[in-house]
Amino acid sequence: MGIAIKQTNPVKVVVDAMGGDYAPGEVVKGAVEAAQEFKNIEVVLVGPREAVQKELSQYETKGLKISLVPAEETIAMDEDPVRAIRRKPDSSIVVGINLVKKGEAAAFVSGGSTGAVAAAAFLILGRKKHISRPALGAMFESLKGPSMLLDVGANADCKPENLLQFAQMGSIYMQRIHGLAQPRVGLLSSGEESTKGNKVTRSAHELLAKSRLNFVGNVEGRDIPRGMADVIVTDGFTGNVVIKLAEGLGEMLGELFKKMNGGASLFKDKRVLNHTAGAMLLGVDGNVIITHGKSDSSMIKHSIQLAGRMVDQGVTEAIGAL
Amino acid sequence: MGIAIKQTNPVKVVVDAMGGDYAPGEVVKGAVEAAQEFKNIEVVLVGPREAVQKELSQYETKGLKISLVPAEETIAMDEDPVRAIRRKPDSSIVVGINLVKKGEAAAFVSGGSTGAVAAAAFLILGRKKHISRPALGAMFESLKGPSMLLDVGANADCKPENLLQFAQMGSIYMQRIHGLAQPRVGLLSSGEESTKGNKVTRSAHELLAKSRLNFVGNVEGRDIPRGMADVIVTDGFTGNVVIKLAEGLGEMLGELFKKMNGGASLFKDKRVLNHTAGAMLLGVDGNVIITHGKSDSSMIKHSIQLAGRMVDQGVTEAIGAL
Repeated sequence: MGIAIKQTNPVKVVVDAMGGDYAPGEVVKGAVEAAQEFKNIEVVLVGPREAVQKELSQYETKGLKISLVPAEETIAMDEDPVRAIRRKPDSSIVVGINLVKKGEAAAFVSGGSTGAVAAAAFLILGRKKHISRPALGAMFESLKGPSMLLDVGANADCKPENLLQFAQMGSIYMQRIHGLAQPRVGLLSSGEESTKGNKVTRSAHELLAKSRLNFVGNVEGRDIPRGMADVIVTDGFTGNVVIKLAEGLGEMLGELFKKMNGGASLFKDKRVLNHTAGAMLLGVDGNVIITHGKSDSSMIKHSIQLAGRMVDQGVTEAIGAL
Repeated sequence: MGIAIKQTNPVKVVVDAMGGDYAPGEVVKGAVEAAQEFKNIEVVLVGPREAVQKELSQYETKGLKISLVPAEETIAMDEDPVRAIRRKPDSSIVVGINLVKKGEAAAFVSGGSTGAVAAAAFLILGRKKHISRPALGAMFESLKGPSMLLDVGANADCKPENLLQFAQMGSIYMQRIHGLAQPRVGLLSSGEESTKGNKVTRSAHELLAKSRLNFVGNVEGRDIPRGMADVIVTDGFTGNVVIKLAEGLGEMLGELFKKMNGGASLFKDKRVLNHTAGAMLLGVDGNVIITHGKSDSSMIKHSIQLAGRMVDQGVTEAIGAL
């Protein structure tokens, strides 16, 4: 089941050069910056040789641990994920995930189609033992610091057991990446009381209450920005609505504010509400980070750094040991 | 089935004097203001005689169409709704809803426990023929004007047919109250394509596409503030998470903004994102408005006016004729 990830130093992180709205330009820029800054990381760009080399030629890469693995096809955002994965074996997503599968790299970072990356990860890497459904975990900046919401889109229909596993995976992530000894786990519901919610959440509440997790009970929509939990679990349908609503409201408020204030920005650089470092695909047999489709070079760099940390901290291995 | 609502002029609107965080003070104030301002409305306050009279005595009510029906019990926000309804027959909610049931008033307005008001409406008024599940519709202010989200909490688990009926009821409401000839109906989902979403939304999409409604397809979380539809339907679990998240984010942004700007408010009086006039309980056999628990006198007044309009425009009758 488990693949042998070579955890030799440096950590090899594969980056999808064609993923995201500003690819390959911003992706290659972010990859170069990561290679300059993080000495323990080796960046492997995957994408069309000519296009990527053209971008790379703009930077001084001598002495940097950055290389190119060619992949001439690209999967578009609107393609059917599973079909695209099957029809485009030479796409940056399929080639990149395969490098992780073969143990030639430790992690994959992409700003491409969430559906396609998730499908490739499921089909090629497979899932960890005991994890019936991998989940997509998104990081939020709450009033009390970072918190993770999962699932945000991998599983539209969930069973109570899935939510329990999401909680376990999210707890491991927050322990290892954010150093929380006992991450507070909340179950997103339509009321604080255990009897509130739908059939799935009412059963999930019982499972979570019996678990050894630090379960703080149901949390409501308003508790998400307040930071009432470090890990908030929900089905992928509701989670997807939540992150997109937060994003839409953030944009709307930003626009309204600009209009009212002659173009001044509401939050300067700080991306309140928006997920900061993309989403982590937890429960598959490999480290996969799906960065925001509108990632600029700094977000790409940050995601590469995070991928390195996930490898160093053994997040995926710990999930496999559940 | 149908109750005979006496639509004589003026329209009698029952107001729960004990409903909401600022009751009875703000409620009575709003009721008096409504009686002063809306000559076609007669306000009936329901609540403990002494407390309500004390509040009323602060105003000049001579010549105003405002009266008091005593109800000595009060249902608290945290009481189990159905149990409270059964145990407290002399509560303002039960007495008020019964006035509508008996045809002695045309509408009921309360800022009290949503669960208790909804339970009383279901149990006492019953539902309209053809409507399997009444829904709670909340009004939002989007970038393109008012839009209604339903269900926001009456039914945590829904079937596709329920969502179709929510769309029908919401369309009638937006036609009659907001004068839209063909309200755009959107189905909240986790992707634009008809194949996206969970099992319930995928089937609901088919039903809506076949209906005679002006169905504009799936809408995503980010489309809610953008005003991509006038009526957005979803199950009561997701809808509840959505309104509470919007409220929480609005509060959070307001606080952050105040801190950054020495106490200045972000939106002045305008309540962007927050539901403006409470929620309408659609599909029960009577006009019921659940105003925000934090309603001040102006919101109470607005809800009373809205109740009058719902009666005048025959919203409930039109839903009954579906």
